[in-house]
Amino acid sequence: MTLPPEFSLIARHFLPLAGEGALDLSDDAAILDVPPGRQLVLAADAMVAGVHFLPDDPADTIGRKLLRVNLSDLAAMGAAPLGYLMTTAFTKGTDDAWIAGFAAGLAEDQRVFGITALGGDTVATPGPTSLSLTILGTVVPGRAIRRAGARAGDDVWVSGTIGDGALGLRVLRGELDDATGHLARRYRLPEPRLALGQAVADTVHAGMDVSDGLVQDLGHLCRAARCGAEIDAAAVPLSAAAAALVARDAALLPIALTGGDDYELLFAAAPGAATAVQDAARVAGVPVTRIGRMVEGAAEVAVRGADGRALALTRGGWSHF
Amino acid sequence: MTLPPEFSLIARHFLPLAGEGALDLSDDAAILDVPPGRQLVLAADAMVAGVHFLPDDPADTIGRKLLRVNLSDLAAMGAAPLGYLMTTAFTKGTDDAWIAGFAAGLAEDQRVFGITALGGDTVATPGPTSLSLTILGTVVPGRAIRRAGARAGDDVWVSGTIGDGALGLRVLRGELDDATGHLARRYRLPEPRLALGQAVADTVHAGMDVSDGLVQDLGHLCRAARCGAEIDAAAVPLSAAAAALVARDAALLPIALTGGDDYELLFAAAPGAATAVQDAARVAGVPVTRIGRMVEGAAEVAVRGADGRALALTRGGWSHF
Repeated sequence: MTLPPEFSLIARHFLPLAGEGALDLSDDAAILDVPPGRQLVLAADAMVAGVHFLPDDPADTIGRKLLRVNLSDLAAMGAAPLGYLMTTAFTKGTDDAWIAGFAAGLAEDQRVFGITALGGDTVATPGPTSLSLTILGTVVPGRAIRRAGARAGDDVWVSGTIGDGALGLRVLRGELDDATGHLARRYRLPEPRLALGQAVADTVHAGMDVSDGLVQDLGHLCRAARCGAEIDAAAVPLSAAAAALVARDAALLPIALTGGDDYELLFAAAPGAATAVQDAARVAGVPVTRIGRMVEGAAEVAVRGADGRALALTRGGWSHF
Repeated sequence: MTLPPEFSLIARHFLPLAGEGALDLSDDAAILDVPPGRQLVLAADAMVAGVHFLPDDPADTIGRKLLRVNLSDLAAMGAAPLGYLMTTAFTKGTDDAWIAGFAAGLAEDQRVFGITALGGDTVATPGPTSLSLTILGTVVPGRAIRRAGARAGDDVWVSGTIGDGALGLRVLRGELDDATGHLARRYRLPEPRLALGQAVADTVHAGMDVSDGLVQDLGHLCRAARCGAEIDAAAVPLSAAAAALVARDAALLPIALTGGDDYELLFAAAPGAATAVQDAARVAGVPVTRIGRMVEGAAEVAVRGADGRALALTRGGWSHF
């Protein structure tokens, strides 16, 4: 009696990803010793072809993005990564080369981030390829960054640059041009800010990662803090490629600030902590920018233009009141 | 600015499932303290509508089955359940009542098994509903049941009854009749043998759960042990409903023994441990049956008929050599 084909697929492509505790993927479950004196941090994100990635994105970047969006959740908590479990529902007819590329991307990022696979499940689906990953990390007990805790008067910071992912998606759809390739690369391969998250964990009052758009996600910090926030639109850091597009068409700025897929860190810290934040960012090797402040009042985010007037956000854009 | 509809969906249906450490599902990740002196045990299983469950199965039993197939992996390791993360990709147009039913099933089984949700992700898919769950449990360090470790001469045991799930699927498809409803119920609502797994963990040499069919899964124990196994077909425990069908059509017996979806425990133990196994089963409240033995030789499973002759397994059935 021969084993069904998924056993061979798992042995060829996923067994090389398995690390200590995965028991060679041959048992019903993995066994993990959590390092002594650490708390476990856990998150899970799903990605569906055609919804969260483009069906013609390279297979290796899809694997890497799946891992990285989950690692970004650990970064947001100030956690260090430990390992992951993954379930893959591959659309029928997915060929071996595609799965090999997908696994090669995971293998590359396992090396980059120093983690291994603990287990998972592989099935076939008549629908689009559907991927799910559960990431495990650790923090010193009680030291995780939380969404709640910002205070009126805090500075609001972001890491890296904002809007590249949302603009990159439009470049890949053929709606915008970016000869540098930077924006498409940023859409396909976000940078989880793990070192920065761990470096600022003891300094900031609250934080999260920007996945659903800067304005909406800052709204989460506001609701958790029961106060408001203001962003100075001109202060939001844009990459050279994004800035070039916005310079040609100002209507792209709202897309950058609300489009999502940034996977940068957003956090609130006391003004007196500014030097500590910048020192931590320097050690982590990631630029950070002060883009606004938490303010007294309703849990709303105001985006101020160069003239200091608030812009009212509409669906996908904004206008003056 | 209003939040996208998935926030409301999560707040209404999934927030009530969240327990300690889930941080009200409002942070990027959950925080978990692993009980001191325990090792973590982790598994993940995916289910796709039309592949792993029937699209018209009741929503509550789909939620419960998703949790139970994962809990069965913990049972197989002799682990105690701790919590879970879940990602759901609901097919477009899934109505609120369906999701409410799905969540109600999860809530009911959370009470039954004493666990809570730690986190997850909810997305929409143009394909069939696709569900993924990562289960967490714990064991005393070094005491997990493993697939490797069986020895020639060991007795082979199974819990409960075999074949109900595979026959129940055929009943639900209208291919077989079962007026009792028992087989369909067993297909939709497997019983993870958590108490039994923990009770026999120190007694057995090797074990696993039966999810892909008794014969194939016993083959895994054989390969891990580098020996063979024999099953006495007449000794395999059948429910009254399954036995009635097999009595009318002997060709259904191979389906029962190879069809899968049993989620019973299969384990190997020294003959001298038989009393300890039966005592543990009594304490756990689950019947166990000796169905054969591990034997010297190649890693193959022989199924012996009432005449003592081995039956050769073909795809979905068997014949004499």
